[in-house]
Amino acid sequence: MANKGSFITLALDVMGGDKAPRSVIEGAHLAFELNPSLHFLLFGDQDQINPLLEEFPSLRKATTLVHTKDLIRNEDKPSVALRQGRKSSMRLAINAVEEGKADAVVSAGNTGAYMAISKFVLKTMAGISRPAIAASFPTNKGSCVVLDLGANVSCDSDNLVEFAVMGDIYARDVLGLSNPKVALLNVGEEEMKGNAEVQNAAAILKKAPNTLNFQGFIEADRIMKGEADVVVTDGFSGNIALKASEGVIDFITHLLKEAIKSSWLSKLGGLLIARPLKRMKDKINPKHHNGAILIGLGGIAIKSHGGADGIAYASAIKVAAQMVSHGLQKQIEEKLSQLSLDLERDHDDSATNL
Amino acid sequence: MANKGSFITLALDVMGGDKAPRSVIEGAHLAFELNPSLHFLLFGDQDQINPLLEEFPSLRKATTLVHTKDLIRNEDKPSVALRQGRKSSMRLAINAVEEGKADAVVSAGNTGAYMAISKFVLKTMAGISRPAIAASFPTNKGSCVVLDLGANVSCDSDNLVEFAVMGDIYARDVLGLSNPKVALLNVGEEEMKGNAEVQNAAAILKKAPNTLNFQGFIEADRIMKGEADVVVTDGFSGNIALKASEGVIDFITHLLKEAIKSSWLSKLGGLLIARPLKRMKDKINPKHHNGAILIGLGGIAIKSHGGADGIAYASAIKVAAQMVSHGLQKQIEEKLSQLSLDLERDHDDSATNL
Repeated sequence: MANKGSFITLALDVMGGDKAPRSVIEGAHLAFELNPSLHFLLFGDQDQINPLLEEFPSLRKATTLVHTKDLIRNEDKPSVALRQGRKSSMRLAINAVEEGKADAVVSAGNTGAYMAISKFVLKTMAGISRPAIAASFPTNKGSCVVLDLGANVSCDSDNLVEFAVMGDIYARDVLGLSNPKVALLNVGEEEMKGNAEVQNAAAILKKAPNTLNFQGFIEADRIMKGEADVVVTDGFSGNIALKASEGVIDFITHLLKEAIKSSWLSKLGGLLIARPLKRMKDKINPKHHNGAILIGLGGIAIKSHGGADGIAYASAIKVAAQMVSHGLQKQIEEKLSQLSLDLERDHDDSATNL
Repeated sequence: MANKGSFITLALDVMGGDKAPRSVIEGAHLAFELNPSLHFLLFGDQDQINPLLEEFPSLRKATTLVHTKDLIRNEDKPSVALRQGRKSSMRLAINAVEEGKADAVVSAGNTGAYMAISKFVLKTMAGISRPAIAASFPTNKGSCVVLDLGANVSCDSDNLVEFAVMGDIYARDVLGLSNPKVALLNVGEEEMKGNAEVQNAAAILKKAPNTLNFQGFIEADRIMKGEADVVVTDGFSGNIALKASEGVIDFITHLLKEAIKSSWLSKLGGLLIARPLKRMKDKINPKHHNGAILIGLGGIAIKSHGGADGIAYASAIKVAAQMVSHGLQKQIEEKLSQLSLDLERDHDDSATNL
């Protein structure tokens, strides 16, 4: 690993994202101001990056620029990006983690391509059959982590159990919780509800009380009530929960603007509540909870929202640094072996009871 | 059918719902004021219902009361409700449709029990393998219908195709659309996205352009943008989309109240935008889009939201009356045979091309 002493080296795909490369350089600058132990390997077009670096001379000292003209576009299919993007800024940034030159990689580019290339280059972590996309959701009580958000459209119960283990570590490392409550997303909270996959996953998780603080099922309307710290689901349902939430937030934001614009009295009212309203929007918007992780890979890969600005990108960098300094991979491996012990013990106990 | 001349007879489970029996009687009164061609068969406890009817003498003339003390509770399991609830207000109301005494049944009670008993008593419609729960969502452009919302946790592609046909009829009859745009809920809009079920369903629907105006896939964040009139999904994902949306709405409503309470200036601001804010809430809240239908049964069964008040219950009654007067069952059967013709024609064409 490149994590020598207290320094953390991050590989940044400077060309990925709707507002790249500016958002990436601004984000790196902000993150570096807050955490001077960061060093950045920047991958991208030097003709675009150098002028930006001149704006931030303090950041310049903490960066090494690796020039490439190639990049992955949002519309590129993962398979095509994998074959034809060997010199792209995204691919080179991921390679840097594999080669031990960086501790983690951050990209705001094409999610499907990022997952496909990361799986190919970094491989899957020992003990994990499928990596997942994990990210935090805002709740009434702070934040929770939801996974998988779209990497795996169908999952069996073992996949869900692995997601639970990885989500537990995310909640500890990123959300700072000591004994995170883990729940399975379902269409009801009663034991007999749901499909075979969630039923079986619940049966397994119940047998491992020493490994995970498993609470049973949670319905989607309770995610934002903060009733669980880790919400485990397959990538199809998780993606739908995420996107449905984003859709409602956009719709309400639109309606709120219309409501305020509807008369001169309401316009005045809108001015008077502008500040608390801004705070509210910052709290609820998933885009401000930036920094999803492609969790379960042989290296740390963080996904920034495609539309992230500098501030949001800095938050993705912060998540990457947290994951590195907490030793994410090692913690997940330990938790997986603890889970095996728990399940073996349960198996032995059941045998004794026969 | 009891639909003699222009009169419509509805069987009401007066004891079902959190605010029952008052919400049901108030709802019936409101609906009757707007549509005097309605007649109601009321099933429930006469000691509770008669005093309420005295408040609404005009309604009394349009009702027939069938007394029963038994009722289904929210916590009753569907299987138990089916076995032990033979004299319940819900069961008797459903029976009335089967016996031809009513044109449709409305209940705000236990959804699982309502579906189980309705399937048992009314059977499934010819050509449909599984009934679904369909309801309208608010959108930027008005409303759309989403189904299934939770009756079937896993669905194959044929189920999804049947849902598309039923959703099309709902959009025509309830939403008043002439050529509704039909889309399949998925985790991306590209053709290769999603699981085998949605992939296969899309392939079938593409072959039937004369039957359905199929638009391809839709992501959950676009539902409220109004990009489709009929959103087709399995009951697991549909329930999660619905519940996630409700959760976000509750959370934002809570945060909005907090924002307005945060200072005396913002309180004043809140007063000034109170009226447009109220209109906005009415528009967005799925509870105000009341009247889900258990679609695909051998009779018309409408589900009111459990927390419905009189106004919301009246909207569920309105949906029931619309379904009856439009001849829902017949339309679905016609559309199904049109679909078979479309698919056969496509099959013949493919054969000719060989």
